[in-house]
Amino acid sequence: MKNVAIFGAGRIGRIHAANLAALSGVSLKAVCDPVGSAAAELAQQHGATVSTVEAIFADPSIDVVAIASSTDTHSDLIARAAKAGKHIFCEKPIDLSVPRAQACADAVKAAGVACMIGFQRRFDPTFNEARTRMDRGDIGKPEMLVVTSRDPGAPPAEYLKASGGIFRDMLIHDFDIFRWILCADGDEAETLHATGSCLIDPAIGLIGDIDCAAVTIRTRQGRLAQINTSRRAAYGYDQRFEVLGSKGMLQCGNHRPSEVVQSDAQGVSSDTPEHFFLQRYREAYRLEIAHFFECLQSGQPFRTSIADGVAAQKLADAAAQSLASGQVVRL
Amino acid sequence: MKNVAIFGAGRIGRIHAANLAALSGVSLKAVCDPVGSAAAELAQQHGATVSTVEAIFADPSIDVVAIASSTDTHSDLIARAAKAGKHIFCEKPIDLSVPRAQACADAVKAAGVACMIGFQRRFDPTFNEARTRMDRGDIGKPEMLVVTSRDPGAPPAEYLKASGGIFRDMLIHDFDIFRWILCADGDEAETLHATGSCLIDPAIGLIGDIDCAAVTIRTRQGRLAQINTSRRAAYGYDQRFEVLGSKGMLQCGNHRPSEVVQSDAQGVSSDTPEHFFLQRYREAYRLEIAHFFECLQSGQPFRTSIADGVAAQKLADAAAQSLASGQVVRL
Amino acid sequence: MKNVAIFGAGRIGRIHAANLAALSGVSLKAVCDPVGSAAAELAQQHGATVSTVEAIFADPSIDVVAIASSTDTHSDLIARAAKAGKHIFCEKPIDLSVPRAQACADAVKAAGVACMIGFQRRFDPTFNEARTRMDRGDIGKPEMLVVTSRDPGAPPAEYLKASGGIFRDMLIHDFDIFRWILCADGDEAETLHATGSCLIDPAIGLIGDIDCAAVTIRTRQGRLAQINTSRRAAYGYDQRFEVLGSKGMLQCGNHRPSEVVQSDAQGVSSDTPEHFFLQRYREAYRLEIAHFFECLQSGQPFRTSIADGVAAQKLADAAAQSLASGQVVRL
Amino acid sequence: MKNVAIFGAGRIGRIHAANLAALSGVSLKAVCDPVGSAAAELAQQHGATVSTVEAIFADPSIDVVAIASSTDTHSDLIARAAKAGKHIFCEKPIDLSVPRAQACADAVKAAGVACMIGFQRRFDPTFNEARTRMDRGDIGKPEMLVVTSRDPGAPPAEYLKASGGIFRDMLIHDFDIFRWILCADGDEAETLHATGSCLIDPAIGLIGDIDCAAVTIRTRQGRLAQINTSRRAAYGYDQRFEVLGSKGMLQCGNHRPSEVVQSDAQGVSSDTPEHFFLQRYREAYRLEIAHFFECLQSGQPFRTSIADGVAAQKLADAAAQSLASGQVVRL
Repeated sequence: MKNVAIFGAGRIGRIHAANLAALSGVSLKAVCDPVGSAAAELAQQHGATVSTVEAIFADPSIDVVAIASSTDTHSDLIARAAKAGKHIFCEKPIDLSVPRAQACADAVKAAGVACMIGFQRRFDPTFNEARTRMDRGDIGKPEMLVVTSRDPGAPPAEYLKASGGIFRDMLIHDFDIFRWILCADGDEAETLHATGSCLIDPAIGLIGDIDCAAVTIRTRQGRLAQINTSRRAAYGYDQRFEVLGSKGMLQCGNHRPSEVVQSDAQGVSSDTPEHFFLQRYREAYRLEIAHFFECLQSGQPFRTSIADGVAAQKLADAAAQSLASGQVVRL
Repeated sequence: MKNVAIFGAGRIGRIHAANLAALSGVSLKAVCDPVGSAAAELAQQHGATVSTVEAIFADPSIDVVAIASSTDTHSDLIARAAKAGKHIFCEKPIDLSVPRAQACADAVKAAGVACMIGFQRRFDPTFNEARTRMDRGDIGKPEMLVVTSRDPGAPPAEYLKASGGIFRDMLIHDFDIFRWILCADGDEAETLHATGSCLIDPAIGLIGDIDCAAVTIRTRQGRLAQINTSRRAAYGYDQRFEVLGSKGMLQCGNHRPSEVVQSDAQGVSSDTPEHFFLQRYREAYRLEIAHFFECLQSGQPFRTSIADGVAAQKLADAAAQSLASGQVVRL
Repeated sequence: MKNVAIFGAGRIGRIHAANLAALSGVSLKAVCDPVGSAAAELAQQHGATVSTVEAIFADPSIDVVAIASSTDTHSDLIARAAKAGKHIFCEKPIDLSVPRAQACADAVKAAGVACMIGFQRRFDPTFNEARTRMDRGDIGKPEMLVVTSRDPGAPPAEYLKASGGIFRDMLIHDFDIFRWILCADGDEAETLHATGSCLIDPAIGLIGDIDCAAVTIRTRQGRLAQINTSRRAAYGYDQRFEVLGSKGMLQCGNHRPSEVVQSDAQGVSSDTPEHFFLQRYREAYRLEIAHFFECLQSGQPFRTSIADGVAAQKLADAAAQSLASGQVVRL
Repeated sequence: MKNVAIFGAGRIGRIHAANLAALSGVSLKAVCDPVGSAAAELAQQHGATVSTVEAIFADPSIDVVAIASSTDTHSDLIARAAKAGKHIFCEKPIDLSVPRAQACADAVKAAGVACMIGFQRRFDPTFNEARTRMDRGDIGKPEMLVVTSRDPGAPPAEYLKASGGIFRDMLIHDFDIFRWILCADGDEAETLHATGSCLIDPAIGLIGDIDCAAVTIRTRQGRLAQINTSRRAAYGYDQRFEVLGSKGMLQCGNHRPSEVVQSDAQGVSSDTPEHFFLQRYREAYRLEIAHFFECLQSGQPFRTSIADGVAAQKLADAAAQSLASGQVVRL
């Protein structure tokens, strides 16, 4: 039995809590959140107790911490968890600063604890099937990747102030997809170009951020990746990628709430994509947590290591730098 | 060079005229239509002359007649053409009466002229591709067929009075598809059940016809076919079939004017099907006429013989009888 | 808190057990199955006890029985549950005999207990979305229904001996879909024609059953339904229907394990449908049980009443009679 | 009646000849090609005469020249045609050198002749429908464009030696699509980044060219475009774009030879895209030539002016420069 404490009882914390609580051999023991009522409600729901950071790290019966608290707390909690000898599941990102993220990775390594970063997209049934087919050789050698990643609507600029900017907040997932799909054989990004605009909400521009971006990455082996992203897709959460290989192409389409197709005088229409990440990645979140505990059990490496987390942060930093300078960045 | 006279300068006559005039080795010489202005216009367009039934059959330089006049003239023109030794392309149906249709077939045989009936759907690129794959064995042995055949809207009841009823007017094509797809190995219909309703336009009921129909055919070998049809599909001309075989299924979808997909808050929508038969079967009409002249040249049998025309008529008769009696008809 | 006993610890029993055990306010107390080890395993998994039919009906703390045992036990268990004052969730069918099914319905009514029959397809997200749109008027008045219902492969003939035949075993669901979709306003079947063949496995023919069937139903209001079914679809479990209305059409497509589309020299291909009913209707089973307990709580009527169960049985009987006689059956 | 002379009796010349010969009011008078037999065959087919450059420009009865000869002859023929007062239809590109292309534009303007450049994609029914919907406001203001443009296979490196490189040879069409779709309101490219690799055929690298490319363009108004291209798509000619606007997205999919969908144990698959440009753009070529002569007749401006041709060349030059320097180019 693995005893777990969770930091963060917000939207994503509640999902992880429910998913891990449903696993056999896993028990949610403690919940910690600055908002007392949220912590209490989540704890009550799963028969756990409300606790504090200090108490959790001091409790020898806690084997694992799941970090789903606000981004600015991640690196500190990882460092303390490592020191306390707890295994760690941490939501992306490790930290908005690459050096601090790297320090976390070092601390984890030194402590010898296991640490997995929550890039849930690698567990999405569609994305994962594409990777499986690539590995099987269905499309030969991968050569080009096009990632389309669009939110249904932009959050208030106020909310984005602490986000680290679109590349660290939103494209971090896409940078991870790039590495997972196009660098599966150890290839890495060599040059990166990013550009973008503020086309949706001028308030986002006023805080120095953009709401549409276009990134191009060329790898050491010459593979090419293009990522296009927008904070607003009027038709919903748009999460696709396609990878072209020497023998074919794999396209990952959106998921729909139903398979109804309506034909009328206006057209032949299917559902818009599942609304947002909580819907689209519901199954991915479930599989991700199950994978985490399976690996803890078996000793197999995680599909998304803390090194992957640091690598994605570095690409986000490079993108921010390219946008600021208007030039290509060499990695 | 084959010299052709065409009977009928209406909608379908103009299509056949344009298609045959574009063929090398084929020359449209004469046009005959009771509406003089229509005949004149079509003749002028293709450098042909306006002529009469008598003159055409008397003209030894005419090798071929294309019959695209009103249904009630078909059998007489076929008989006279056969007698005059002209090869014949005739729009479906041969005749609303099976005995008269059979008499035409006999006359054609006796005269030794070639005669092809215009079941253009067999030349539709999609339908034909399905048949090609069946023949290739892609889906093993065919077992079941589902035909969906719906017009975009019902014509006025007045117009339908002389049509012979929905089975002879509209399903005749679907009966031919049934035979072409499910009886490719010589199998034939054994029992037929038809039912239907007047749900769209009560005036159609008043003339003793129906506007929605459901037909089931079981073949001697036990294969099953279901045809569903309606005079009204609000989304346009719906022309599909699917055939299930022991190793898989082939589905023939509608054709769309464009491959644009629009995603917005309302859904993800593609075009409605091509509007009606002139659009959907434009390519089929072209290929059909080309096939006719190729076969005339090569001596190969037509894909749609006059016997096919008679056989489809017999199924239409059986359907009408089943509807009237409320019982299953044995063929 | 509703305390539940479940009869049947097989494939479908385990699904219902897991789904109801996950509901708040519902507790699985007892499991009963002639196979002791299966009962023990399921009981252990959910913290329930193994029990007997007698003990369950004698236990006043049991509020609800879920019947997922073999078909031949259903009607007896319903009758005893009704007598014992337990609310009932019962897998389809009520009984292979319509009079016995009707007797169950009478017993349930007399006892004043609640009873829902497990037609899970009404809870499938796709099928349910179609019905919702129909109710909303998206396609106007419904006129025609085409149901395609095909299993991935035929079970051994031996297994089918006790099934009651293809209409009672397999099409029972499709008859319910017909009533749910085309008779939502109180319309009912008026005439029914069924035919079929044994094309897949001669052994199925030897036990007097068929493996492919085609059914046509005409309602009192003249609506038309066609059902085509086969025990074998080489591409997997094929569960679709389409309903044509005066203003448009709704098509319910299959569900796929992933949204990957692979393009290579062979074609552009997506996944085959989810393998079989346990996969395709996983979500439907979950929603069905949740609905049952919500209705118990709220007093709202079930979406699938015992009367619906009887009505579907009557259609299955009519189909068997039509097949045997080769004639149309009037209901 | 417009009398036309055509330069070039190769693949594309034959298409234009057939299309213009089919137009009423247009007559193909002369064919000129260095390969005498090709010229003779094409002339014979359309009742035209074989002629020479000199004779064509000296013939006052020739109103229009269609230039479909090799790329290196375009600018000279345009200049001479302008001088001779002939209207001009010229295949892309005007010239591999932007100054020479601009000189052609100047010559055309000075001579007051009409000149259209053959960017046939603007006439593709799918692409054109997307533009029509954009103009209608269906997706609000356009913000992002993703163009996927892939050939079925790389030509021999030898063939590419005189092509001007992938940007001038292949992406020239995509640059025009970018301008047509994203700059419809007069917006223009401001910065461009191009990168690429030689991943398919090392021989292409040896002649200093690449076979995969990724281009990003940002417009003055901040719109973003990404173009991905490859000389090899194992599944055929891949010609798509999608444009995201403030209210939705338009996606232009590939065209398929048929609408057959095959379901079997391997998957559910539709046709690969139409093989190559002669198939995919067959209708576009037809509409393009018809448009040219309609505009000549009506005096309306062409959809693709010589200025569009020059502008696309400038983007191709910028892309080549960006690739060579590894830096972003400001336009």
